[in-house]
Amino acid sequence: MCIQDSSILVILETVEYSFLPSTLPLNINMSAPTSEQKHVLVLIAMDAEAAPFLQRLQLKEAPLAGPAWLPCKAYTGDYNDMRITVVTNGKWRAGQADAVDNVGTTPAALAAFAAISSLQPTLVINAGTAGGFKSKGACIGDTFVTTMHRHHDRRITIPGWDDYARGHHEAHSCEKLRSVLGFKGGVVTTGNSLDATETDRIIMSSNDASVKDMEAAAIAWVAEMAAVPFFALKCVTDIVDGDQPTHEEFLQNLGTAAASLQVSLISVVDYLVGKTASEL
Amino acid sequence: MCIQDSSILVILETVEYSFLPSTLPLNINMSAPTSEQKHVLVLIAMDAEAAPFLQRLQLKEAPLAGPAWLPCKAYTGDYNDMRITVVTNGKWRAGQADAVDNVGTTPAALAAFAAISSLQPTLVINAGTAGGFKSKGACIGDTFVTTMHRHHDRRITIPGWDDYARGHHEAHSCEKLRSVLGFKGGVVTTGNSLDATETDRIIMSSNDASVKDMEAAAIAWVAEMAAVPFFALKCVTDIVDGDQPTHEEFLQNLGTAAASLQVSLISVVDYLVGKTASEL
Repeated sequence: MCIQDSSILVILETVEYSFLPSTLPLNINMSAPTSEQKHVLVLIAMDAEAAPFLQRLQLKEAPLAGPAWLPCKAYTGDYNDMRITVVTNGKWRAGQADAVDNVGTTPAALAAFAAISSLQPTLVINAGTAGGFKSKGACIGDTFVTTMHRHHDRRITIPGWDDYARGHHEAHSCEKLRSVLGFKGGVVTTGNSLDATETDRIIMSSNDASVKDMEAAAIAWVAEMAAVPFFALKCVTDIVDGDQPTHEEFLQNLGTAAASLQVSLISVVDYLVGKTASEL
Repeated sequence: MCIQDSSILVILETVEYSFLPSTLPLNINMSAPTSEQKHVLVLIAMDAEAAPFLQRLQLKEAPLAGPAWLPCKAYTGDYNDMRITVVTNGKWRAGQADAVDNVGTTPAALAAFAAISSLQPTLVINAGTAGGFKSKGACIGDTFVTTMHRHHDRRITIPGWDDYARGHHEAHSCEKLRSVLGFKGGVVTTGNSLDATETDRIIMSSNDASVKDMEAAAIAWVAEMAAVPFFALKCVTDIVDGDQPTHEEFLQNLGTAAASLQVSLISVVDYLVGKTASEL
């Protein structure tokens, strides 16, 4: 069944879990973290995607370790039994009139590396907007929890490298989380373009992708090296196998999807209270 | 005029500079660097590309600052008035039977970030093999010094982001170096695939590219943020606008191009003696 934009709150009311957006018991403090404390790192590419979540959890800017020119921005706070840090990719040409968010795989890998090596989180989530495949049941506003992370724009037809280039970074298992929160599950396929060529479409199809994004597989590569549990949470802004040009649909639905992403992220964070990564 | 593989040594003899491969006055020591010492960082994606240069300069492995899981490998030594450090991207699945080099933009950006932030070099060079465009006068074995770094597989047709995605990271000016050493100059276009789709070819052409690689523009993005002088040195292994499939030509010519790359790199390093980055 398709869930369209504004119906997301109706859906939330039908799901059994303790959080309701209007009554979220915010319990945030900024005291020093304890050594046993869980630390959830949420990587979000764009400032516009992150803003509602940062505001809702009242996270405060706290610079990451690294050189002054590191473009990423970090925001942190404590919520119940965990520390939560959101890291965005920052801007290209920050401070200039033509500044835009650093989207795509290279800034995502850099942010993941800088944040994971500096913060040593116990769980990493890549949250963001994505295209959805209607052939896999995706609709605008849907939230997907990823099961696998692949690339569709890295073609290297040399044995050994073909597998590396396509990537097959499995997500941390969180079937219970997905089931309890009513999210869909599926493979995310990552590429550096908003559109897709015919070649991209063939590879995305062979990747068995439910959603298409621009960051998840790059972050999964870093998280895999760091051996930290990782999954991505993706809200659908546009339909990849639909009729409307992606960039039009993306801009039209970005606000709605960012709000939907915030609601989904809060529900995930609330679900994490009292649980370790192995209990998801 | 085309220079074919084995003729590279003939060409070297006709160029006026002090270095000849057989008589290179190696002057390497591993004492602590002085604060005024130049530090040249050479980023090379693959171990096979780096091996001849590492061996020739007898550089020693010296771990980079960072987490134990950082995949990059660093090798360092002093040569005349400068410290030289080579950083390779390391392996995916290192130590396993199916390990392959981490090629492409994400490992390149990560290596550039880790190495530049840790070593604070005075000059960064990305050295590697590349495809050449015969329409721009490129031949197998040619060495190109880049003038500009662009992407051809990042299509975002939203005003502002289009420019970011395509990239236009200018190279550090080194016209004198190029002229004295007899290298060609041109734009490098970067993508994560060894082959090229029709869409890629259209964008590579609009990028006015002389060579096609898989790392340079990602490194240029990092070097630009760090405000460190940067250019790429690319040896041609295959012809992009030729008849032979890239992967066949690449494997066939990798050894020759790696040897050619080492000769070119040594000549660059020798040229750098006694000069600052602003004198190139």
